[in-house]
Amino acid sequence: MTHPLFEKHQATLEAAVAAIHTRGYWSAYPEMPSPKVYGEDAHDAGKRAVDAVLGKEFPLDQPGRSGWAAPERSPYGVPLAVRYPVCEAQALVEAAGAAQAGWQKLGAQGRVGVCLEMLARLNRASFEIAHAVMLTTGQGWMMAFQAGGPHAQDRGLEAVTYAWDEMRRIPAEAVWEKPQGKNPPLKLKKHFEIVGRGVALVIGCGTFPTWNTYPGLFAALATGNPVIVKPHSNAILPAAITVRILREVLAEQGLDPNLVSLAVAERREVTQALATHPAVKSIDFTGGHTFGQWLIDNARQAQVYAELAGVNNVVVESTDNYKGMLRNLAFTFSLYSGQMCTTTQALIVPAGGIDTDQGHKSFDEVGTDLAAAIDKFLADPNVANAVLGAIQSGDTLRRIDAAPALGQVVRAGTKLANPEFPAAEVRSPTLLACDAGDEASYMEERFGPIAFMVRAADGPAAVALSERLVREHGALTVGLYSTRPEVIDAMTEATLRAGVALSINLTGGVFVNQSAAFSDYHGVGMNPAANASYSDSAFVANRFRVVQRRYHID
Amino acid sequence: MTHPLFEKHQATLEAAVAAIHTRGYWSAYPEMPSPKVYGEDAHDAGKRAVDAVLGKEFPLDQPGRSGWAAPERSPYGVPLAVRYPVCEAQALVEAAGAAQAGWQKLGAQGRVGVCLEMLARLNRASFEIAHAVMLTTGQGWMMAFQAGGPHAQDRGLEAVTYAWDEMRRIPAEAVWEKPQGKNPPLKLKKHFEIVGRGVALVIGCGTFPTWNTYPGLFAALATGNPVIVKPHSNAILPAAITVRILREVLAEQGLDPNLVSLAVAERREVTQALATHPAVKSIDFTGGHTFGQWLIDNARQAQVYAELAGVNNVVVESTDNYKGMLRNLAFTFSLYSGQMCTTTQALIVPAGGIDTDQGHKSFDEVGTDLAAAIDKFLADPNVANAVLGAIQSGDTLRRIDAAPALGQVVRAGTKLANPEFPAAEVRSPTLLACDAGDEASYMEERFGPIAFMVRAADGPAAVALSERLVREHGALTVGLYSTRPEVIDAMTEATLRAGVALSINLTGGVFVNQSAAFSDYHGVGMNPAANASYSDSAFVANRFRVVQRRYHID
Repeated sequence: MTHPLFEKHQATLEAAVAAIHTRGYWSAYPEMPSPKVYGEDAHDAGKRAVDAVLGKEFPLDQPGRSGWAAPERSPYGVPLAVRYPVCEAQALVEAAGAAQAGWQKLGAQGRVGVCLEMLARLNRASFEIAHAVMLTTGQGWMMAFQAGGPHAQDRGLEAVTYAWDEMRRIPAEAVWEKPQGKNPPLKLKKHFEIVGRGVALVIGCGTFPTWNTYPGLFAALATGNPVIVKPHSNAILPAAITVRILREVLAEQGLDPNLVSLAVAERREVTQALATHPAVKSIDFTGGHTFGQWLIDNARQAQVYAELAGVNNVVVESTDNYKGMLRNLAFTFSLYSGQMCTTTQALIVPAGGIDTDQGHKSFDEVGTDLAAAIDKFLADPNVANAVLGAIQSGDTLRRIDAAPALGQVVRAGTKLANPEFPAAEVRSPTLLACDAGDEASYMEERFGPIAFMVRAADGPAAVALSERLVREHGALTVGLYSTRPEVIDAMTEATLRAGVALSINLTGGVFVNQSAAFSDYHGVGMNPAANASYSDSAFVANRFRVVQRRYHID
Repeated sequence: MTHPLFEKHQATLEAAVAAIHTRGYWSAYPEMPSPKVYGEDAHDAGKRAVDAVLGKEFPLDQPGRSGWAAPERSPYGVPLAVRYPVCEAQALVEAAGAAQAGWQKLGAQGRVGVCLEMLARLNRASFEIAHAVMLTTGQGWMMAFQAGGPHAQDRGLEAVTYAWDEMRRIPAEAVWEKPQGKNPPLKLKKHFEIVGRGVALVIGCGTFPTWNTYPGLFAALATGNPVIVKPHSNAILPAAITVRILREVLAEQGLDPNLVSLAVAERREVTQALATHPAVKSIDFTGGHTFGQWLIDNARQAQVYAELAGVNNVVVESTDNYKGMLRNLAFTFSLYSGQMCTTTQALIVPAGGIDTDQGHKSFDEVGTDLAAAIDKFLADPNVANAVLGAIQSGDTLRRIDAAPALGQVVRAGTKLANPEFPAAEVRSPTLLACDAGDEASYMEERFGPIAFMVRAADGPAAVALSERLVREHGALTVGLYSTRPEVIDAMTEATLRAGVALSINLTGGVFVNQSAAFSDYHGVGMNPAANASYSDSAFVANRFRVVQRRYHID
């Protein structure tokens, strides 16, 4: 009776269940783009697959097609011109709704088996997806492969695993037998059916079109819901490939492929109509505060899982590894030009400077040394281009250009040439200094390679400012450098109150902006930057209901 | 390291965990008010305890007291005049917030241990609570004891158990060790802390002041949140006794008793201010649609778990046990004069009548026979008074008086005398007949002993009408009488689509309006009558977050 795909992937699922209960290191999908793992031709085949759709109609046979759209512009300057079907929202919602009953009847085991097969297929397509991610987001190749491929798949699997871990504990049926003293017992047979809440809408972002999409997509699917994926209009291709693969798996299984569809909307009103459709019961959103809040305020018929903006910050109070700290921060600020939702924006440093293993360093010295560390890290143009990638949007370019006015320039951002992609806009981090009182400068998200050194009165004031930033403006990540247990304790308490993940004294190969599936709870869901976390039981448990029936038996 | 109270109650918890995973019959607290179980003096001691507070100040030493209020009026006509402290909302919220950190630090095991001790103490006070429930709600004694005592405690324990089952799977810490090929692994220590979302407000109803309050109260407490209990202004005493006992347990444990407090508000604006307080992060509400929807629309800072109104219905299509069916329905309509959120309001019957083991019965015959069954069931005044209880509110009395205008009277409701409580308003069910098209009559909740026989075209039309009622007006319970597998299948599919619990062919000692803890999912949470269920993982998982910190280790 076990579904064949459940059986096929059962070992992976069992290991994943063990991983979410221990949350040590675990991964299902190899993160190294190695020919030994993915095949000798995998890299080229992936590139060919992407090249084959450039300038063409993307093959997705969806209902309600009213036209074609090709809105993407590559940050690397590569002509894309992929034409995607534009489908009527009503047609997609109706088709999704029609596909739900068959998906529900498959049962939790069957759905999870199919989801695991989908993820395995996505893994095999990692190079194709990586090329698509790189071209549309401006990520460097390695990040595009890792974050866009295996890490995103791990996050998808993590969501499926949480869903499974909730659903498997609900019995399909029970005999309820209540003693009645000397009389025969009352006896009922009961059936418990897991039912998805309804159509799920997953709205992607422009920078991580798979990593931030797969958790909601697979959480919704596994719990019995049809999904409409609405990608960012500049990062459609990775989502389109994903949807194509998922529809292929569904069709192979004799299931209705319209269970998963792609919504390409060129105007915000279309997305708004979709988001407020009465049949849409959940929305996963990654993006800016304005539209995220609009969704929360207006899509009242749906449960909204939102990852929004924030002001991630790191308190630098003292360190016993000054060079390691500077190297670590230089990497964090540089990676993908700071275009990560987890990148530090504010470095809060006591005005009197900090104690280090290299002696006391003044506030200005920390700035000078950090600027030098960034320079050094990016000195090799090959490394610089590989790490920085390209600036994803014109808005970010405009923010970079306007940044110097926001503080005292500690390190001026620079424009780098990319020999491979001459049209790419490559920019190194801008580092500014300002006072804690200059709230207008640093107290809002300035997405991109723009960071502030914020001068706080002292260590306790730095910790307090960090807490206030998290509470009032949100943060996905917070860091601390300190050698003093009392400061570490104070920061720990502050982050427990404010509800944000804390990284302490990272000086090696782990960075505050990295979040590992199956171990790090990404986002927490307790401060204004996000109302949900990847992944925990809250991320899945409210996406389905248990509907029961009961009757007497002898 | 195990908390002593966790250890003390571990066997109960383990049995409860097994029960939520199997959902057969299980109960922790004996439902029979037997002297052998509860002690020879338990009944009288409970009554004395209640009598001792009548006309007096209720002993609750809470912060921010601005006065006293005694708004309760007993449906049995017993003078109550218990004076409760009225406390400033801001003071209660602040005190609750201040108590949270210590409660969090106790950890999941400690909190669950304390919650189990609280429930054990409530169980010991079952007679006191039962007297309070009876006097304030108008329930008959046996229902007041069972639903107000052990059944409510079971529902509280069920919520604690779901909370525990979620929390126990989150490791307190982990070592994350990521291989780096030939280099030493990256190694991080991670700590995962379960943090409650913030102050919980639990708003009770006038008819089941403990049964509908304990799930939210204990779900919120166990997951790390302070709780303010705001009872219905006519059913304060059972909540006040509960809060008093919980505060006693907290004080004994050296914990801040302000973790649990009672909010007595005489004006709706005070409750509204409390509900929209920024520190209030969850609201559990049982009551009418108007205020429930107001909460959902306005208390946007909080997660709202709401049980609202609905139009519960039963489709009568055919039966092989006509007498059993009529007896069963007569009991359902009579119990607590239909003042249960689960009582059937609409009986949907094909216009052409139904096939039964007693031959075909016309629509009118079913009505006549059902009226006779109610008469017969209530013929003995002792039984009638014990089952019917008293009418809880003037609004319900007014609805009863107005009911005959809403349809053709099949059975006229009667006023019964209660020798023990001469001032009690005791009323037997009014049964009306109408056409499916008379939507203005039966398509809104008419809380109390008012039921409609709705004439549908045929069986399929009856099933379709039931589904529409659930989808558009909500329902906590739906029933079906049919001997035909295709009708049972159609009704099953309809209830899966609409999201409502179905009882099929109940002809014995189980009734559609009864919902057993640990087995029946009360409310489902998928139709307009409720957005949450007692209890499932969704009822607890979103009440806490996991906040992590990580740092390198060697």
